[in-house]
Amino acid sequence: MPYVNIKLTSGVTQEQKDTLIAGVTDLLAKTLNKDPEKTFVVIDEVQPGDWGVAGVNTTVYRRRKKAAAK
Amino acid sequence: MPYVNIKLTSGVTQEQKDTLIAGVTDLLAKTLNKDPEKTFVVIDEVQPGDWGVAGVNTTVYRRRKKAAAK
Amino acid sequence: MPYVNIKLTSGVTQEQKDTLIAGVTDLLAKTLNKDPEKTFVVIDEVQPGDWGVAGVNTTVYRRRKKAAAK
Amino acid sequence: MPYVNIKLTSGVTQEQKDTLIAGVTDLLAKTLNKDPEKTFVVIDEVQPGDWGVAGVNTTVYRRRKKAAAK
Amino acid sequence: MPYVNIKLTSGVTQEQKDTLIAGVTDLLAKTLNKDPEKTFVVIDEVQPGDWGVAGVNTTVYRRRKKAAAK
Amino acid sequence: MPYVNIKLTSGVTQEQKDTLIAGVTDLLAKTLNKDPEKTFVVIDEVQPGDWGVAGVNTTVYRRRKKAAAK
Repeated sequence: MPYVNIKLTSGVTQEQKDTLIAGVTDLLAKTLNKDPEKTFVVIDEVQPGDWGVAGVNTTVYRRRKKAAAK
Repeated sequence: MPYVNIKLTSGVTQEQKDTLIAGVTDLLAKTLNKDPEKTFVVIDEVQPGDWGVAGVNTTVYRRRKKAAAK
Repeated sequence: MPYVNIKLTSGVTQEQKDTLIAGVTDLLAKTLNKDPEKTFVVIDEVQPGDWGVAGVNTTVYRRRKKAAAK
Repeated sequence: MPYVNIKLTSGVTQEQKDTLIAGVTDLLAKTLNKDPEKTFVVIDEVQPGDWGVAGVNTTVYRRRKKAAAK
Repeated sequence: MPYVNIKLTSGVTQEQKDTLIAGVTDLLAKTLNKDPEKTFVVIDEVQPGDWGVAGVNTTVYRRRKKAAAK
Repeated sequence: MPYVNIKLTSGVTQEQKDTLIAGVTDLLAKTLNKDPEKTFVVIDEVQPGDWGVAGVNTTVYRRRKKAAAK
C-alpha cells in the first residue's frame, strides 16, 4: 500500500507524468512486491515562484546559473 | 493541535468539502478531545492526470474499470 | 482514491487510531462515495518537542497554558 | 539537505514568498549549518475554501471572527 | 529539483531502500533530465497500526485478506 | 493559519529545534502578519538511510563527499 508524492517544478507533459507513474509503480512492485492496485502516485507541479533553492525562487536561481555558465 | 491533509481527485463541491472539514474536526474532538480551534484540515484536489494508481493515471484507470464492468 | 494524513502529538492508543481510521474512511464513503478499499489513512504521531505552536514547542506551550489557567 | 513545506491560505505576493524563502534558508544555514544549495522551500497557497479550522472553512471562519469582533 | 516522498508500511531493508532511491532518481533523470544532485528521495516507514485501508489498520486488513484466501 | 513542515536528517538538539520553531513563526508573523497561536511548525528528523540524494542514501553521500574533499 505505498503512497508516493512527487513534487517538481511545473512544465511536465502528461506523457512524462505517465512515465513517472508507471516507473515508480513498477519499481515498488519489483523491489518490494507491492500490489500496483494499492500503489498511489501523486504528482504536484509547483510554480517556479513557489519553489525556493539556495535562498531564492527557482526563476531567479535558473537565471543565475545561466549567467554563471556563460 | 492536529493537522489533517486530505488528498483526492478533483470534482468536489464546496458543500462536500465543508462536510469533510466538519466531520474530521468533530471526529478528532470526540475521539481525542482535540480543540477545534487548533484543528486544521487542508483539502488538496488533484487532477486525474496527476494521480496514478495501478501504474496509470486516474483517467485511464477509470476508463479501464468501466470497460471491464461491461 | 483518497489519501488522508493525520498528524498529531503523540500519546494516542491503538483503539483511538482505529476509531480515527474507521471514522475518516466512513466519512469519505458517505460524503463522496469513495471506495474504502482505495482509501488510505496514515497517522503520524509527533513528539511534543517536534511540534511548535505560538513559537514554542508543545511541551512548553502546554506548561504555559496550565500556568495561565491557574 | 532540508526540505521545508509552507502551507498557507492564498493571497501572498511574490515578494513575500521571496522573503519567506530567504528567511527560512538563512535560518537553517545559521542554526544547523545547512548548505543553501541543498535547501528546498516549497510554498503551497491553499484556497480559503480548502482550508478548515474550528470545523469550518477559512472564509466562514474569518467572517465569524469579524462579526464577533464588532 | 524534485522532492519525492515514499510512504510504505515498515519492514524494508536498507538494500531495498537503496534500490528505491537509485531507481526513482534514475527515473527522474531519464524522464525529465533532472539533476540527481538536486533530487531528494525521503522514505517514511509507517507502522502497520498507523496505516489504515478499507477502514481498518493494516495488521487487521492483512489478517482478513489471509483468512479470505483460505 | 500556516502549517510548516521541516524535514531534515537526524541529529538536531531540542535547543536547535526551538530556534527553528521560534524563527519560522516569527518570520511568518513579520512577513504576513500571521497569528503565532495559529502557526504550526512540525519537524521531522529523518534517518540518513531513509534520505536519498544523488541516487544514494545520505550516509553514502557524505562519505563520498568527504573522500572527494581529501
